[in-house]
Amino acid sequence: MAGSTFGNRISITTWGESHGAALGVVIDGFPAGLKLCEEDIQVYLDRRKPGQSKFTTARAEGDKVEILSGVFEGHTTGTPISLMVRNLDQHSKDYGDIATTFRPGHADYGFYEKFGRRDYRGGGRSSGRETIGRVAAGAICAKLLRELGVEVFAYTKSIGDIRVSEFELGERDLNPLAMPDSLAAKEAQEYLEACMLNKDSAGGVIECVITGVPAGIGEPVFDKLDAKIAQALVSIGAVKGVEIGDGFEASKSVGSINNDAFEMIDGRIVKTTNHSGGILGGISDGDDIIVRAAIKPTPSISQMQHTVNENGENVDIEIHGRHDPVVVPRAVVVVEAMCAITICDAMLSHMTDRVDYIKEFYKN
Amino acid sequence: MAGSTFGNRISITTWGESHGAALGVVIDGFPAGLKLCEEDIQVYLDRRKPGQSKFTTARAEGDKVEILSGVFEGHTTGTPISLMVRNLDQHSKDYGDIATTFRPGHADYGFYEKFGRRDYRGGGRSSGRETIGRVAAGAICAKLLRELGVEVFAYTKSIGDIRVSEFELGERDLNPLAMPDSLAAKEAQEYLEACMLNKDSAGGVIECVITGVPAGIGEPVFDKLDAKIAQALVSIGAVKGVEIGDGFEASKSVGSINNDAFEMIDGRIVKTTNHSGGILGGISDGDDIIVRAAIKPTPSISQMQHTVNENGENVDIEIHGRHDPVVVPRAVVVVEAMCAITICDAMLSHMTDRVDYIKEFYKN
Amino acid sequence: MAGSTFGNRISITTWGESHGAALGVVIDGFPAGLKLCEEDIQVYLDRRKPGQSKFTTARAEGDKVEILSGVFEGHTTGTPISLMVRNLDQHSKDYGDIATTFRPGHADYGFYEKFGRRDYRGGGRSSGRETIGRVAAGAICAKLLRELGVEVFAYTKSIGDIRVSEFELGERDLNPLAMPDSLAAKEAQEYLEACMLNKDSAGGVIECVITGVPAGIGEPVFDKLDAKIAQALVSIGAVKGVEIGDGFEASKSVGSINNDAFEMIDGRIVKTTNHSGGILGGISDGDDIIVRAAIKPTPSISQMQHTVNENGENVDIEIHGRHDPVVVPRAVVVVEAMCAITICDAMLSHMTDRVDYIKEFYKN
Amino acid sequence: MAGSTFGNRISITTWGESHGAALGVVIDGFPAGLKLCEEDIQVYLDRRKPGQSKFTTARAEGDKVEILSGVFEGHTTGTPISLMVRNLDQHSKDYGDIATTFRPGHADYGFYEKFGRRDYRGGGRSSGRETIGRVAAGAICAKLLRELGVEVFAYTKSIGDIRVSEFELGERDLNPLAMPDSLAAKEAQEYLEACMLNKDSAGGVIECVITGVPAGIGEPVFDKLDAKIAQALVSIGAVKGVEIGDGFEASKSVGSINNDAFEMIDGRIVKTTNHSGGILGGISDGDDIIVRAAIKPTPSISQMQHTVNENGENVDIEIHGRHDPVVVPRAVVVVEAMCAITICDAMLSHMTDRVDYIKEFYKN
Repeated sequence: MAGSTFGNRISITTWGESHGAALGVVIDGFPAGLKLCEEDIQVYLDRRKPGQSKFTTARAEGDKVEILSGVFEGHTTGTPISLMVRNLDQHSKDYGDIATTFRPGHADYGFYEKFGRRDYRGGGRSSGRETIGRVAAGAICAKLLRELGVEVFAYTKSIGDIRVSEFELGERDLNPLAMPDSLAAKEAQEYLEACMLNKDSAGGVIECVITGVPAGIGEPVFDKLDAKIAQALVSIGAVKGVEIGDGFEASKSVGSINNDAFEMIDGRIVKTTNHSGGILGGISDGDDIIVRAAIKPTPSISQMQHTVNENGENVDIEIHGRHDPVVVPRAVVVVEAMCAITICDAMLSHMTDRVDYIKEFYKN
Repeated sequence: MAGSTFGNRISITTWGESHGAALGVVIDGFPAGLKLCEEDIQVYLDRRKPGQSKFTTARAEGDKVEILSGVFEGHTTGTPISLMVRNLDQHSKDYGDIATTFRPGHADYGFYEKFGRRDYRGGGRSSGRETIGRVAAGAICAKLLRELGVEVFAYTKSIGDIRVSEFELGERDLNPLAMPDSLAAKEAQEYLEACMLNKDSAGGVIECVITGVPAGIGEPVFDKLDAKIAQALVSIGAVKGVEIGDGFEASKSVGSINNDAFEMIDGRIVKTTNHSGGILGGISDGDDIIVRAAIKPTPSISQMQHTVNENGENVDIEIHGRHDPVVVPRAVVVVEAMCAITICDAMLSHMTDRVDYIKEFYKN
Repeated sequence: MAGSTFGNRISITTWGESHGAALGVVIDGFPAGLKLCEEDIQVYLDRRKPGQSKFTTARAEGDKVEILSGVFEGHTTGTPISLMVRNLDQHSKDYGDIATTFRPGHADYGFYEKFGRRDYRGGGRSSGRETIGRVAAGAICAKLLRELGVEVFAYTKSIGDIRVSEFELGERDLNPLAMPDSLAAKEAQEYLEACMLNKDSAGGVIECVITGVPAGIGEPVFDKLDAKIAQALVSIGAVKGVEIGDGFEASKSVGSINNDAFEMIDGRIVKTTNHSGGILGGISDGDDIIVRAAIKPTPSISQMQHTVNENGENVDIEIHGRHDPVVVPRAVVVVEAMCAITICDAMLSHMTDRVDYIKEFYKN
Repeated sequence: MAGSTFGNRISITTWGESHGAALGVVIDGFPAGLKLCEEDIQVYLDRRKPGQSKFTTARAEGDKVEILSGVFEGHTTGTPISLMVRNLDQHSKDYGDIATTFRPGHADYGFYEKFGRRDYRGGGRSSGRETIGRVAAGAICAKLLRELGVEVFAYTKSIGDIRVSEFELGERDLNPLAMPDSLAAKEAQEYLEACMLNKDSAGGVIECVITGVPAGIGEPVFDKLDAKIAQALVSIGAVKGVEIGDGFEASKSVGSINNDAFEMIDGRIVKTTNHSGGILGGISDGDDIIVRAAIKPTPSISQMQHTVNENGENVDIEIHGRHDPVVVPRAVVVVEAMCAITICDAMLSHMTDRVDYIKEFYKN
C-alpha cells in the first residue's frame, strides 16, 4: 500500500498540497452509527488554524471542512467518510527563487531527488497544511473514543528549554502556546519574542496523555501500540524524536526503579507508578498512556541562509512571508489526532482477539 | 494485515515463542538473484546469541538457522525465504509462580488481558528471542544493501549514564558491551557489575549510522523514512524512545543553527552539518542517517518485587534464572537489522517513483 | 486495511454515495511525471455517463471531474491525486417505500444487517455511481500503460444470449451497446426493447483484451495477475462470474489441446495458441491477456416484486424512476478501468523483482 | 505487502517449493482460545495427499504437519501459528531437459522472465504442493467457523463434461473423484481412464457451498465477499474461472427471474430462490453461499509437446513421472480451505462495523 494511508481497521488517506485546490482525507472502515456533523470536526481544525496569535502565521486560512460522504441523517454510515477543506489563499504568485532553490531544513531537496519535480508553492505536499486531513480524521476518532471513556489530551511540554513545571488543567487553552502552566507560558513567550527579533525560530516538546484505555490493547510485535504511536508521531513533519513513559530517562534508570509494581486496589489491578507510560511489551497496561514528541525549530526563517539551487549553484536565500516562529502550539492538536487514530484503530482490533469474544458476538 | 508483518515491497513475518518448538521468519518480496547461504545469516544471529560474556544470560542457545525455502542453487529465487531456528532448550519444567503471576515491567498482564491466556514459558512471544526472526531477515537485507553501497552500523551509545565520548571504529567488536570507546566500555562494565551485585539491571542507548543512502528515499506522509524507522525501533521489546539526528536536543535549538546548509562540493550537493540525521521531511537528504533507541533496564531482576497474580491476589516474587543485566549489547544487532529492513524496503519503493524510471525500465 | 482501497504500489481509494454531495477517488503511489489534465479523465467518465441512449437511464449527470491535488504544472507530482465529481442531481425527495424496503437483487438487506442503517437514496454506496472513482483512476493508469505500449480494450461480448460473432474494431463505439459486431448489436437492441416492454431487464458478458504486457508480470501465489483481475472484476457491482482465457470451457478440454505450445518466431518466444488468456500460473506469458466478466440483469425493474421491509413485513414493491434495462454497455469502461489499474500496479511491482534490476538502478 | 500473504484480520503467508526442504504457512491474527492439535490439520492435509487412487500421482508424500508456534496447552494463543510439512521426497535427481525447457501450460516461462531464474524441481513454487500451506490454514479457519455454525463443503461438480446431476451427501467421500453422485463418478472414471490411455489429462469444476453465514458479511467495494472469494479461488494454480450463484447463466437471465424475492418465514427474512448464490452487492444475504471454480486440464502430460528452451531453441519434450491426470479431486479441499479463510476473515471484520457493537464490547 502506498504511503499516504495509515491505520488497519480504520484507514485514513490524506491528500492535498499547501497551495493546491483543496486538502482532505478519506476515512475508511469507520464504524456506522456515530452521530457526526461538520462542527464536530471544525472545532479541531480551528485549533490548528493559523492567525490566532503573533506566534503563528497570519495567513487567513478559512479551513472550513465539508463532509462529502459517509454521513447520512446525522450519523456515520460505515462507508468512507470524505472530508475536504478548500484552499482559499490559492492566488498564483511569483515564488521567485523558492521555486528552484532547496530551502535548508526543508524537504525540498528530497522531494526533487525522489520525484524529479516538486510543487514548490508553500512546500506543496510537505507543508504543515497536510496535517489538516489528519486533524479532521482525528476529531472523528476522538469522538468515538470519548464514547468509550477514552480521552486524548496533548499540550506543549516545553518551548526551547523552557519546560512546564506545574500542570494546570484548563490553562492550556488560555495561552497562545498551549502550555498548561501560566508561568512557563509567559516565559516561553518572552523567549519566542527574542527569537523573532533575531529572525530566528524555536522548537519544543509536546506531551500527550491518553486516559481510559483498558489493558490489553496493541499487537505484540511490529504493531506494538507504542510502535504505531511512534510511527504516527514521527510522521508529523517536524518531529525528530518520540518517547513513551520515561523515554530516554529510562535508559539511565535501573530495573528495581523502572519496573512499575502491580497492586490490587479496590478489586482492580493497578500500577503504583507509571514509568512505562501505560504500555508494556507493546500492549496497554491499563494505566495512562503518556508519549512525547520533540519538534524541531521551524526551518523557514528570514535570516540569510546558504544553500544550493536546482542548477547545482551555491546561492543565498532569505525566506520571507508568513511563517510560524514555532510550530509547537499548532502541532498539539495534530499530536492528539494521530494518537486518537492509533488508539481507536487498536481498540477495534482487540475485539477479534479471542475466540470467546467471537462466539459471544455470533451466539444468536 | 495482522501485526507480525513489517514492510511493504519486502514483507517480513516473524513467528515463534521463547520456549516453543522453533522460531523463524518468512521474507516475502525479496528480489531474486542474491547469493545467499546460511552462514550469511548465522554471523548476524551469533551477534545476538547469549552466553558470550558475564553480562548476557548463560543460556546455551545454539540458534542454528536453517533456510527452508526461497534459495536455490545458492541464490534467492524471488519467492518467500523461510528461515527457522529450533529451540534446543525447550525442556518442560516447573515455572512455578511465574506461570500465574504478572511480572512487573513485563508484557505478562497485557497479554493476559488481550488474549485471555498466555504462553508463560520464558515470556512466550514477548521474549527477546522473538528478535531472532528480525535479525535473520536483517542479515539478508543488509547483504543486499552492501551491494548497493549502503552500510548499516549500530553500537552502544550509552549504558546507564556512561556515554561513549570517542568513536573508535573496530573497538565495538572488542568489548562485550559493543561500545566503540574502550574507556567508556571499561567504565560501563564496572557500573554493570555494581548493578549485578544489587540484583539490579541497567538500560542504555543504541545509535545506528547508515551510510550510502542516496537522497530521495522515503515516502512523504505516514511512511516517512524516519516514521518507519521509529516504528521499527520502538517495536523492539525494551525500546522506550527514538531520536533522528539531534532528536530531543533539536527541540531546544533554533532554526538558524538546526537548519543544515546545502553546498556544492566537487559537483555534488552536500550538507555542511547534519543536525537532521540524514532525513528531512521524511525523505533521505543524502547525508548519513543517524538514529538512536533508548532501551529500558531489563525488567527481570532477582530482587523481591511486589505484584499481582491471575487470581487478583497481591503477591511478592523473585525472578530467578538466566537474565541479562542489560540487553543493550545484544540489541545492537537487532537495531541494525530493523534499520536494514526499513531502508532496503524504501529503496525498492523508490524505483517506481517516476514515470521516466518506468519508461526506461520497459523501453524495449 | 479497510475495503475501499485497491492496489499495492498504486493504491486507489474510492468514496461517495449516489445522492451524496460528491463522489471521488484518491490515487496514491502514482509515479511523478505523467502529463495529465482533466480532459484525460473526462473522456473515460463520459463513456460511463448515463443518458446516451434509450438503453441507459436518462438521469442528467454532469459528472465533471475536478483534479484537487497531485498534479502541478500539467504533470503528476508523485503525491496523491484526488479527483472529485459533484452530484448535481442531489435534490431531496421522498423515497417512499424504498427507504425502508429491501429491494430484491440489491444490496439493501446486506447493508442494513451489516451497518444497522443505510443510505437508501439511489442505493447509496452500492450504487453504480461508486464506479466513477474507479473509472477516473483507470483513465490515469491507462494513460501510463499506453506510454509503456500496453492497450486495454473492453467490449460487450453478449447481451442475454446474443453473442458477438465477428469482431469489427471501431464498431464498438458506433452502437449504444458497445458491441464490436453491428449485426449482433442490432439483434441485441431488439432483445432489449422486448425486455423493456415487459418491464424487465437483461444481463450480458464483457470481454477485455490487454495487449503489450510483457511476460513475467504478476505474483506467484495470492496476488497472481489473474487472481487480482478476478477480485477487481467481481468487485464491480453486478458481476457474478469471471473467466481468464478459455475459462469454464477449459474445464471440458484436455491437456493436449489446452496447453499452448511455445515457439521461437523472429527471435521471440510466442505461443501458437492462447487458451491460457495470456496468464500461466498467475504470471503473464507475453500473449494477449483475455478476461471476461458476467453481468447479471439490472435488479431494478418496474414489475411488481415481493419482498420484506425493515419492520419484517411482507410487502410488494414497484421500482419506478430511471433505471438502465441493462448495465453492460456502461460497465465496459469500468472493466477497462479495473484491468488498467491491476496491470499497471503489477508492472510497477515487477521492477523490483531482481537484484540485477536494483543494482542497475542504483549503479551510480 | 508482498504477494504470498492473504487476508486482513487473519493473514496467512505461505512459503515453500515442491522439492525444497519443507513447505508451510504462518497464520497471523488468529484469535486466542481455539482448541487445536495437529490431527485437526492433518485430516485436511490427508484429503489433498496424493497416492490415494489411480487418478492421483503415486508420489509418496508423507505430508505430516508440525505445529511450530502459536499453540500452547492445546489452545491457540493469539500469536502467529507456524505450520510446517517436511518434504520427504527431496532426493536430488537429474531433471534433464525440464531444467531448461519451458513446459507448455506451466508457469515456467513466466517465472523465468520475472525472476531471471527459477527452481525447476517439480515446478518449485508454482507446484500444487504450494497449496499445503493453504489447506493447513484452512483447516484451522474451518474449525473456528464450525464453532460459529458455519460449514464449508466443496465437491467435484464436473469432470470434463460429465456433470453431477444428483446430490447424494456422503457419496463425495466414497469415490476417488469427490463427486456427490455415484453414477456421475462412475462415468467420469471411465472418461479419465480414456484420457490416461491417450497420455492426456482432464479438467473439471468444483462447487463449494457455505452454510450458516449470517447476512451482513463482506465489504461494500473492493473487498466484496465474492470479490475476495474470486481472488482466493483464482489464486489456486489451475483455476481459469469462477462463478457466484448462477454465474455466467445469470448473464442470460432477466431481472424478474434472477432477482430473489425476500419473504418473512417463521419470523426470519429468507429468500425464496437463491440465484444470487448468497451474496448481493458483495455482502452476504443470509442464504447459502454457492461458488464454483473451473479447473483446467493438468498441463503435465506425457504426449510429445512442442516448446522452447532457455536458449531460445525450438524443442520437443515428453514429461514423464508422476502426474495427476486430473487435479480436480485433490483441489476440492483447497477450494474449501480458501473459502474458509475468506469467510472467517470477513466474519471477524464485521465485529467492528457498528458503533453500538463497539460500545457493547467496551461497556464495562
